[in-house]
Amino acid sequence: MTDTRIGFIGLGAMGRPMAKRLVSQQYRVTGFDLNPQALAELEALGGHSAASSREAADKADFLVLMVVNAEQAEAILFGDDALAALKADASVILMATCAPSRVQAMAARVVATGRHFIDAPVSGGVVGAEAGTLTIMAAAALPVYERARPILATMGSRLFHVGEEAGQGATVKTVNQLLCGVHIAVAAEAFTLAEKAGVDTALMLDILTQSAAGSWMLSNRGPRMLEAEPDVTSAIDIFVKDLGIVADAGRAARTALPIAAAAHQMFLAASGAGHGKADDSQVIRAYRALNGI
Amino acid sequence: MTDTRIGFIGLGAMGRPMAKRLVSQQYRVTGFDLNPQALAELEALGGHSAASSREAADKADFLVLMVVNAEQAEAILFGDDALAALKADASVILMATCAPSRVQAMAARVVATGRHFIDAPVSGGVVGAEAGTLTIMAAAALPVYERARPILATMGSRLFHVGEEAGQGATVKTVNQLLCGVHIAVAAEAFTLAEKAGVDTALMLDILTQSAAGSWMLSNRGPRMLEAEPDVTSAIDIFVKDLGIVADAGRAARTALPIAAAAHQMFLAASGAGHGKADDSQVIRAYRALNGI
Repeated sequence: MTDTRIGFIGLGAMGRPMAKRLVSQQYRVTGFDLNPQALAELEALGGHSAASSREAADKADFLVLMVVNAEQAEAILFGDDALAALKADASVILMATCAPSRVQAMAARVVATGRHFIDAPVSGGVVGAEAGTLTIMAAAALPVYERARPILATMGSRLFHVGEEAGQGATVKTVNQLLCGVHIAVAAEAFTLAEKAGVDTALMLDILTQSAAGSWMLSNRGPRMLEAEPDVTSAIDIFVKDLGIVADAGRAARTALPIAAAAHQMFLAASGAGHGKADDSQVIRAYRALNGI
Repeated sequence: MTDTRIGFIGLGAMGRPMAKRLVSQQYRVTGFDLNPQALAELEALGGHSAASSREAADKADFLVLMVVNAEQAEAILFGDDALAALKADASVILMATCAPSRVQAMAARVVATGRHFIDAPVSGGVVGAEAGTLTIMAAAALPVYERARPILATMGSRLFHVGEEAGQGATVKTVNQLLCGVHIAVAAEAFTLAEKAGVDTALMLDILTQSAAGSWMLSNRGPRMLEAEPDVTSAIDIFVKDLGIVADAGRAARTALPIAAAAHQMFLAASGAGHGKADDSQVIRAYRALNGI
């Protein structure tokens, strides 16, 4: 057991395997989530469970937030007062995908208490979280980043220190999500055209992934896109949110993003048709509805 | 020397290395192009040059067309009467990117003379053409395809027999180009947001290519996108054309393609601003103009 105490809030599809990896590296991890099953799993592995986010943060050196959005992160830090429960020189590591402007505001409130803030969103999905191969885009003052590095390196294999200012990590993640969301939606658009033009979509997938048309998302989501009811690895509503953050960042920076805007509409349509909890590959359902398939 | 005679029309950036590979495999290749330099190069390697497409086609077993578009292919086959000069049981191999409906019409006229038609567009660019690693998406009656297979295998390493009907190869290529064109344009969109939001774009490229945001096009075009005057591997006007074919295919199949349509507008804008001959990575200039960078 190391002496480093980590509070970990948000033990969902991503957070659970990330917290497990920290436990396996002998960190003293105290988790909190509204799902009791997730807490029981963490305890079974040698972690600790708390009855509230404030309790999980109590006297911790680091507080990792792997929650759904900025609203949840703010409620935990300031509403539940988890921030005040941390050690006086603790660091908050925000790993959820949030709008850059929200991250800046949160960081300012954290730093005002004398504690540190690391803006460290991730990419790589559940597979990356389980394997500890996440990409982590971290912004923080360099000494703060260096102190957290062993913890980050337990969860991710590709660590980037993208800047010293809170919000820069979120910006990099926002640009990342712009590409991810568009790549999923345009794969659905391509399959829709293939389907309507009478091309075998399985053969099409095989060709496309091996040609200059390939993308990480096409290889990863393409096979599930051709299934009727695939397992949910990441839901459509996640990209409704993330491309919303992209749109907000575009507005804030006064930057027209016509392709991302079109992709966002397709995720919104899929969610509006009742598929928000379905796997994000099922954005293809919006294309099918649109084109009468 | 094999006894197989190949006429090869169109010795441009793609056609030249493709024809050279055929020569190196001991095929009797007679080429034609309006550029005398290309003909001289082919002769230096042991190929033959012709004074017209009709002469290149004279008594050939195969006629490879690696021209710019359907108009050129039709002019060669029917205007210059290259078709009539071929052996009675010869095959025309159309490798240019053309609209599926145009390919069907061309094939019908070729087949009406008793000759065969192979709808065989390619993907992989100049690098693939030089290395013989092109992806070839071929549609033809199976015996016709099998007879041409050794020739196709000299130019490409990933051969797909996508169907028996002319137009099916062109359709697969159209879907391929939809993804390629969008992946280039959205990479430009992502870099534009990064630039406006104050993120280092070289670092951004490094992160994105290693994350779930990666695509073949991002890795290939991304570095050139960050250069002011990169070498031209494929021009903006090629995607003005190819995404035009995508749009036509969408209309023909009554399929809405909102993301491809947005990407097409950006290539059109870049061409309209005078950058049509620039490397296609320079579609980013349209984003810069749009956003006042």
